[in-house]
Amino acid sequence: MTADNGGLPQGGDSRAGSELLEVSEPARSGGRPVAALAAGLGALRPLPAGAVRWGTGFWGRRARVNASRSLAAGLARLETSGVLENLRLAAGAADGAYHGKLPFLDTDVYKWLEAVSWQLQQPDAGGWSAEESAEWSARAEEIIALVAAAAAPDGYIDSYTTVVREGERWADMAMGHELYCAGHLIQAGVAHRRATGRTSLFDLARGFADLLVAEFGEGGRRVGYCGHPEVETALVELSRETGNRAYLELAQRFVDLRGGGLLGDRPFGRHYFQDVTPVRESFELHGHAVRALYLAAGVADLYLETGEQALFEALEAQWHDLLRGKAYITGGTGARHRDEAFGDAFELPSDGAYTETCAAIALMQWAWRMLLATGQSQYADVFERVLYNGFLAGVSLDGERYFYVNPLQVRPDSTLGPDGRQEWFSCACCPPNVMRTLASLTHYLATSDAEGIQLHQYADGSVRVEGDGGHGPMGVEVATAYPFDEAVRLTVPAECAGHWTLSLRIPPWARGAARLELDGAVLELDDSDGYARVRRHWRGGEGLVLTLPVRPRLSVADPRVDAVRGCAAVERGPLVYCLEQFDQQVSVDEVRLLGPVYDADPVRIGEFEVPGVALAAESLAVLEKGAVPDGWGYRELGEGSPGAGAGVLLAAVPYFAWANRGYGAMRVWLPLA
Amino acid sequence: MTADNGGLPQGGDSRAGSELLEVSEPARSGGRPVAALAAGLGALRPLPAGAVRWGTGFWGRRARVNASRSLAAGLARLETSGVLENLRLAAGAADGAYHGKLPFLDTDVYKWLEAVSWQLQQPDAGGWSAEESAEWSARAEEIIALVAAAAAPDGYIDSYTTVVREGERWADMAMGHELYCAGHLIQAGVAHRRATGRTSLFDLARGFADLLVAEFGEGGRRVGYCGHPEVETALVELSRETGNRAYLELAQRFVDLRGGGLLGDRPFGRHYFQDVTPVRESFELHGHAVRALYLAAGVADLYLETGEQALFEALEAQWHDLLRGKAYITGGTGARHRDEAFGDAFELPSDGAYTETCAAIALMQWAWRMLLATGQSQYADVFERVLYNGFLAGVSLDGERYFYVNPLQVRPDSTLGPDGRQEWFSCACCPPNVMRTLASLTHYLATSDAEGIQLHQYADGSVRVEGDGGHGPMGVEVATAYPFDEAVRLTVPAECAGHWTLSLRIPPWARGAARLELDGAVLELDDSDGYARVRRHWRGGEGLVLTLPVRPRLSVADPRVDAVRGCAAVERGPLVYCLEQFDQQVSVDEVRLLGPVYDADPVRIGEFEVPGVALAAESLAVLEKGAVPDGWGYRELGEGSPGAGAGVLLAAVPYFAWANRGYGAMRVWLPLA
Repeated sequence: MTADNGGLPQGGDSRAGSELLEVSEPARSGGRPVAALAAGLGALRPLPAGAVRWGTGFWGRRARVNASRSLAAGLARLETSGVLENLRLAAGAADGAYHGKLPFLDTDVYKWLEAVSWQLQQPDAGGWSAEESAEWSARAEEIIALVAAAAAPDGYIDSYTTVVREGERWADMAMGHELYCAGHLIQAGVAHRRATGRTSLFDLARGFADLLVAEFGEGGRRVGYCGHPEVETALVELSRETGNRAYLELAQRFVDLRGGGLLGDRPFGRHYFQDVTPVRESFELHGHAVRALYLAAGVADLYLETGEQALFEALEAQWHDLLRGKAYITGGTGARHRDEAFGDAFELPSDGAYTETCAAIALMQWAWRMLLATGQSQYADVFERVLYNGFLAGVSLDGERYFYVNPLQVRPDSTLGPDGRQEWFSCACCPPNVMRTLASLTHYLATSDAEGIQLHQYADGSVRVEGDGGHGPMGVEVATAYPFDEAVRLTVPAECAGHWTLSLRIPPWARGAARLELDGAVLELDDSDGYARVRRHWRGGEGLVLTLPVRPRLSVADPRVDAVRGCAAVERGPLVYCLEQFDQQVSVDEVRLLGPVYDADPVRIGEFEVPGVALAAESLAVLEKGAVPDGWGYRELGEGSPGAGAGVLLAAVPYFAWANRGYGAMRVWLPLA
Repeated sequence: MTADNGGLPQGGDSRAGSELLEVSEPARSGGRPVAALAAGLGALRPLPAGAVRWGTGFWGRRARVNASRSLAAGLARLETSGVLENLRLAAGAADGAYHGKLPFLDTDVYKWLEAVSWQLQQPDAGGWSAEESAEWSARAEEIIALVAAAAAPDGYIDSYTTVVREGERWADMAMGHELYCAGHLIQAGVAHRRATGRTSLFDLARGFADLLVAEFGEGGRRVGYCGHPEVETALVELSRETGNRAYLELAQRFVDLRGGGLLGDRPFGRHYFQDVTPVRESFELHGHAVRALYLAAGVADLYLETGEQALFEALEAQWHDLLRGKAYITGGTGARHRDEAFGDAFELPSDGAYTETCAAIALMQWAWRMLLATGQSQYADVFERVLYNGFLAGVSLDGERYFYVNPLQVRPDSTLGPDGRQEWFSCACCPPNVMRTLASLTHYLATSDAEGIQLHQYADGSVRVEGDGGHGPMGVEVATAYPFDEAVRLTVPAECAGHWTLSLRIPPWARGAARLELDGAVLELDDSDGYARVRRHWRGGEGLVLTLPVRPRLSVADPRVDAVRGCAAVERGPLVYCLEQFDQQVSVDEVRLLGPVYDADPVRIGEFEVPGVALAAESLAVLEKGAVPDGWGYRELGEGSPGAGAGVLLAAVPYFAWANRGYGAMRVWLPLA
């Protein structure tokens, strides 16, 4: 095992058979040179695991909530929901009916195992002691043993097919989710091996993957692809992990075949499965959002390994399509409840927004790979937007309740939307997906290239690369209350002396207004490509202060977004804000913004304090109780226009923090007077 | 058979065993004193069949298209879709698999039979010769024989249960639709007997109804109600037809039990079935729109027979809820695709509008019954709005293609919405529902009371009541190009001389601006209750001219309807207009209305000519090709606002006529500059 083979496709399977590290040695585990995600042909390289560490700031706290509360609650739910029992049924170790009706419930287990694995990789980030790590590792091994018991002799694993379909495999490629389940198993197996060095889960994953190659590979017994893309990213990563190109080629084959209509015409149509046009001719995003975005991430992974330009051009066109009119201001995607699908361009209703939490995660995965491929700030910009808004709103501040659907507006007593945060779901894809994302979030903050290191996201903690591309150690300590506060204080440790470039992403709202000081002297800052780059010979010990103008601002949408015409949304730094009825004196549906927005007192929500924002507004007299005209809700233009009402000050809170003090009416977009 | 028993609850089953009229005698058939729908305790009485006759105007033409084209095309589809074959399967007269997956496909047959029956009641309205009527009658009897063959010995009829469920009855009250199917059979049977005097279908319907009484009546074998309300109206009408209160009491029992949660919790929740609160405590409209509105119609029928105030109060509250924020300007209802449900109040997206054609029909049925109950113009106002817009848009001008979903906006290349008019559907509830409504539309135009007659809708033709409540004959000849033109010319025939009151509804947009002349002299007109009432002793031969200000106007929505904030819609008389991309030089999504609207040249669409409307607007320069900024679709307020663009004149056509010249982008609501 060498320092630079991990995660690189040419590395070979050098770790197979290497000695196991005890998980009770967190320091060594955290320091292992395992890349979280793609490397390959990209402009930027992911950093080794352990290179980014949390401090006590925003993300450090969230990570500890995830490690200390979400994983344990999740384990309890895996048991009570019956998904572990389903594995026992498949193993012949239990009797009874299959729990749940969905064919992909095994992935709840796999995603949870992946989350525990990433947390075991850096137990200190979750606040785990060595004893706790050993306990979590042992719990994971117990569940891995269940997965192993459910495996068929030839490596096939899928409790639903085994129990409900009586072993009839690949009978429903459109909705059977067998390859989707395999993908999550593979990702969990890779994470578990990278984190612990153990191969208990990895061997199961590889065994299944080998079976997939035999079944679906070139010259295999079957020609097909999965109705729910996901296995593509997993296979590319397995190829990186093992150096075995067969997995890469299988991912390539799935991508090459897709769009051939092999999935058939289901009620929601072929768009639902991204099966209308070949991938290289798919220049727009259509259909089920999570499927489309996992597929895009998989195609990006493939591009990172093969460099095939036609794939990248399709991805760039899809990205443009996304940004232009298929993403919410929260970074949420998937406008439609009916088929969990993207809307048409500019079809972005606030109340009807589906914006599944898993779609936010899938978009982060795609954006990250596009960032690695190109080094362009736009991908990190979107990553940040999704991270703080569309994604983070999906989990409660206490880490134990979740949204599956993330609307931007909830009306009073609504029968739409999610009806409050839930502890689990009959389709529980989101909760363990949140857990694995939070447990691996350190992997997504910074990168390196031949010049130095790039900070894409700002979090209290540190970044440290032990030597990369001929450099000695490079890194910075980061002290910041970002995203709440404007100052990011960076210190280059003495041992990171040397000639290298520190690149700092300047978010779009800060471009042209950010300020950077080096040991008290203001640096001239060129952020035209989205990064401020400090190229110098570091002595070590230098202190930098990056100041980002984190102030409330009002944003508006493209005029073709009908749903929010005449409205503005409050943003503050990377955070989108919202009005919760809880905080107001008047109905959130009966106010008009006058314009001014102000920083207000912090708001305590559970264990957290978040910056408040105040908005000058007026309530509409015509809508005040008793003043609503009865009867038909339409009138001739000019008749009975609402008069100006009383002035009111509205209190907004970050969108990610909503519905933590009860569930009620809420709005992100507010009509302008 | 006496002149006043038809449709009255106290009438008794006097028509059973009466001599049959030959359908080849259209004059006698049309003159039979059969009420189409409810009478009972209402403020107004429906007129006998044949009292209203079409002339050559708008509705006369539509009726002939329905009779000459829709019914024949429908019959062909009943065969090719397999729904007739399903009856043969149930009868044991054919082999093979059941056609279609839905449990209510028999109702396609029943609704078509009902449509043919109403048309047989007044063959001249459809332009049928005596020979054609005889042919249609014979075709109907052939199909009735199929239904008879599918009936079980005890009267039960349901091909799906018989074939697919192997006879297991009432196994799924929530989604099995057995009572729903029974309801449509009963309505068809009543219509067929009223129209033809024959009892072939009626006897089957009554046999099944008697079984329902035994199964579900007080002291019966089962306690329950149907997941899809519909049987309630049918049972009340059957009670009126037969004078047998057992059917009325069964409808009452279904209404009394509903809300008890007996349908269970299905994926869409108990709101879907209107099973959350008892009917008397249901003051809002929730869930599946067609279900909710058929239920409301059934409850109104029950009120018309029992006078129970608690039922009426619930209906009034639901009506208010509808008008305030759950109806589109087209009269369409049901905002949500996901569960075909009402939205929350003010949740009325134009693009996402589901607004099923059947929901429009159900609302017309409810509105009509509320009109009979109260005599209030608001119900006729809504009836007219739905009739000309939300309902009529559901069928093509050639009568052979249908919309199931009726959005108010279609974006370019949309993947939402209906994707064009279809000849039939796998769930084909709408097409034969349109047919039966058009075939019985004369029943809904006018009423009588002790004072005289009321014209609620204006159509070229005549209204004639042969004597009612002590009066001699009352009636008017109507000559009008309404809704296209403003003048409604009414002539009282010589034989209608006598003291009686002619009440003319003044639509809301005409109130205070309508003009009424009697033999050239302007009458003082008080339309404060929505009707101009002319109380006098008619000599006969008088000519009245009612002038309604049919001019284009701009309408806006309640400011809480987020979806159309800052927009206006064009209305002209009772017609809602829309922009079809087909007619424009610029994208319909990139214009802003400046205000002025004008009458324009007529537009020829297929065989019809409709009044055009022109709108002064500007195209948005920022949205012109090449000027769209790349990247993220949101910006800070005040940055890069769209500049004023070039002036353009937009061409609007009536909404009911859209998608008859190809299917493309369309908008009802247009942003104001």
